[in-house]
Amino acid sequence: MKRTKVVDAFDASLYGTKVNVKGWVRTRRGNKNVNFIAVNDGSTIKNIQVVVDLSKFSEAEMKPITTGACISVIGTLVESQGKGQQAEIQADSIELYGGADPDVYPLQKKGHTLEFLREIAHLRPRTNTFGAVLRIRHNMAYAIHKYFNDRGFFYLNTPLITGSDCEGAGAMFQVTTLDLNQVPKTEDGAVDYSEDFFGKPTSLTVSGQLEGELGAMSLGAIYTFGPTFRAENSNTPRHLAEFWMVEPEVAFNEIGENMDLAEDFLKYLIRYALDHCQDDLEFLCQMYDKELIDRLKFVVDNDFVRLPYTEGVKILEESGHKFEYPVYWGADLQSEHERFLVEEHFKKPVILTDYPKEIKAFYMKMNDDGKTVRAMDVLFPRIGEIIGGSQREENYDKLLARIEELHIPMKDMWWYLDTRRFGTAPHSGFGLGFERLLLFVTGMTNIRDVIPFPRTPKNAEF
Amino acid sequence: MKRTKVVDAFDASLYGTKVNVKGWVRTRRGNKNVNFIAVNDGSTIKNIQVVVDLSKFSEAEMKPITTGACISVIGTLVESQGKGQQAEIQADSIELYGGADPDVYPLQKKGHTLEFLREIAHLRPRTNTFGAVLRIRHNMAYAIHKYFNDRGFFYLNTPLITGSDCEGAGAMFQVTTLDLNQVPKTEDGAVDYSEDFFGKPTSLTVSGQLEGELGAMSLGAIYTFGPTFRAENSNTPRHLAEFWMVEPEVAFNEIGENMDLAEDFLKYLIRYALDHCQDDLEFLCQMYDKELIDRLKFVVDNDFVRLPYTEGVKILEESGHKFEYPVYWGADLQSEHERFLVEEHFKKPVILTDYPKEIKAFYMKMNDDGKTVRAMDVLFPRIGEIIGGSQREENYDKLLARIEELHIPMKDMWWYLDTRRFGTAPHSGFGLGFERLLLFVTGMTNIRDVIPFPRTPKNAEF
Repeated sequence: MKRTKVVDAFDASLYGTKVNVKGWVRTRRGNKNVNFIAVNDGSTIKNIQVVVDLSKFSEAEMKPITTGACISVIGTLVESQGKGQQAEIQADSIELYGGADPDVYPLQKKGHTLEFLREIAHLRPRTNTFGAVLRIRHNMAYAIHKYFNDRGFFYLNTPLITGSDCEGAGAMFQVTTLDLNQVPKTEDGAVDYSEDFFGKPTSLTVSGQLEGELGAMSLGAIYTFGPTFRAENSNTPRHLAEFWMVEPEVAFNEIGENMDLAEDFLKYLIRYALDHCQDDLEFLCQMYDKELIDRLKFVVDNDFVRLPYTEGVKILEESGHKFEYPVYWGADLQSEHERFLVEEHFKKPVILTDYPKEIKAFYMKMNDDGKTVRAMDVLFPRIGEIIGGSQREENYDKLLARIEELHIPMKDMWWYLDTRRFGTAPHSGFGLGFERLLLFVTGMTNIRDVIPFPRTPKNAEF
Repeated sequence: MKRTKVVDAFDASLYGTKVNVKGWVRTRRGNKNVNFIAVNDGSTIKNIQVVVDLSKFSEAEMKPITTGACISVIGTLVESQGKGQQAEIQADSIELYGGADPDVYPLQKKGHTLEFLREIAHLRPRTNTFGAVLRIRHNMAYAIHKYFNDRGFFYLNTPLITGSDCEGAGAMFQVTTLDLNQVPKTEDGAVDYSEDFFGKPTSLTVSGQLEGELGAMSLGAIYTFGPTFRAENSNTPRHLAEFWMVEPEVAFNEIGENMDLAEDFLKYLIRYALDHCQDDLEFLCQMYDKELIDRLKFVVDNDFVRLPYTEGVKILEESGHKFEYPVYWGADLQSEHERFLVEEHFKKPVILTDYPKEIKAFYMKMNDDGKTVRAMDVLFPRIGEIIGGSQREENYDKLLARIEELHIPMKDMWWYLDTRRFGTAPHSGFGLGFERLLLFVTGMTNIRDVIPFPRTPKNAEF
């Protein structure tokens, strides 16, 4: 008999028919005549209620049907009499696939702390919370691909193992096949990388942007979406050693079109979540963050404010607000400053532009003032910076001068510079931290709770 | 003025209107009165022809417009008089974004070998061949996400940095933040991994399957799609150190349903390519592989043969064909054997099942014969194995026995075994090497030519 997924079982046109539902027992309750088993198969946050007339089933059959057990139920789908339920199954037969010993199964029906659930990350997708988060994660990933595909962008898989650390965006993990017990050395005592797999030191990428620019300067519009790494020893609710990043890059786009793209993209994603993840969002809203759905609608419904950094700093300085970190022209803004602008001053998402060149990367296009660059950060309520991007310096001589000024090793940069030597053009792009987006969309507060298997200092379990 | 992409310019409803096209010069030819510039912007393999009345432009303006230069053209879009062209632009003005010195720009209009183009992987997406391949790569990636999303699968991002090497699927890259010049040692002379980032040895994953099974046993149906690594020192046209893998995993699916999924999935992808990549496929067909499109249609139009390994070996033994590698029951089949079955014997794609347990992984479900496991390999013309999968052993005791038999370190496996301890159920899945698929769909013969920046022994450029 063909299986019906739980998500498809709440369909009035099926009432009165026989269905076969398979899934995991969330709860079992009842009295000596009738039992109610809530079954979930991961396809939706909703459980289907299975009604069991105990006169038809033996005690031996019913005993292993405890929380966490996996069963296959055949029965008649009917409209439920109980309130809140839309459909239930009157069981004809129940097959047990696998039990879950109540003495040791860690996910009993009682609520668990998020900290505890992190220790059993291999089981936590069976909870309502992580089922909801992971379904939303899927939907956001799909929406990202759909957005770009529908607009003629090409997905470009930039390499994860890299021989260059050009951007200097963060500490890197080394990738090697050398035996750490006996590292081969050259005559002068240095590590002999000629014996390493790639014949030179290699690391895990901190960004696909530079390769992404190569793609934009040939295919026109590309995006990357893949894992990215930072070996920073920071144990905070906002940092992961392995996280996913989305980086579109578009030839011929200048900073204004880059802002248009970022705003349209974020609104599309959030609208997609509101349209496609209603049940999961309502659950998270109810359990974790009462303002979640209002906050999502707030972003979709408001134009983002666009403001030069210099004006933003002025507003912060004149606000009279006491900040933990000082604000002055030239300072790298902290989350508290960004959130003040968004949540207190404008009460709208803000795109801050034209940052001092000293606090931004070498490849950003210099403004005519010689002091600021065409950078843009999109600031969101509760999160602060959710997107960072810029128009890129397309002039070969200016880019080279900046590289030399900052002592970036040229030997690593020849291929990047070639895009400016041969058919250069204005182009722009940005990076969206996928887990940052998910924090915003799910209302979760710890980044370890929006990725299936988090990697953090001293933690690479599962 | 709003830019028109080249792909949108072949639209008869725009004829007679002013358009602004931006892109890179592929060729320039003509006489002293009129010049024809072929412009490509990466949105399509087609160039748009720009017609330049030289009486309207100065020599200084025209001089830098050489192959590889980037220009912005404003003019009137008209139906072309020349044969083969559908539309052309009569130029009013041309702006030069960036030249490409003909003395040094490596991509002159002459054809280049694929070997040479690999050395300039940062520029090769500007060629017809790699533009076509990378657009097809995008379309196949999108089709993968669309296929699974439309069928209720969730995209699960399994970790790339892993602390376990359970599957033993291949040599691994070590990931470390230890200083290789001075590796810290414990008192007994071993590497002191307590000082490493994760506090233990870690590697780059060779497969997301084991974590994927955790996802299937909670969310019901998942797929992974991400980078995977093998540190094998093999310099062949079929191997990469970093490649992309697709791994669906479905709770309650048995081997037959797994075969149905694999066949339907592959046919969907290939049909998608035929429907969405017509221009690029026609180019590759013409330039590299005359039978390409026929071969794609052949797969879509034929039911896959399903055959036990034992019968496959019998056919090979009785074929009278001389193989380089011997064939006997228990042998791991080579590409020549697989291709014989597909291309010579059945003349259809073949799914081979029920392999000897000795040549397959520990987690595959044992058949009742005690000798074979519920493995399945999908064999394709020209490629051999394109998919490998299995029904998984869901019985805790049987799986444990197999782990002990093969001396797989148990300490790494507790979380995997937990899926069998708590609510176990039948489940199945498979892996598709994304670049293998692309070799088949593009007709390219070297795997380095279907990924933007290949990673192979002694090569991590760009």
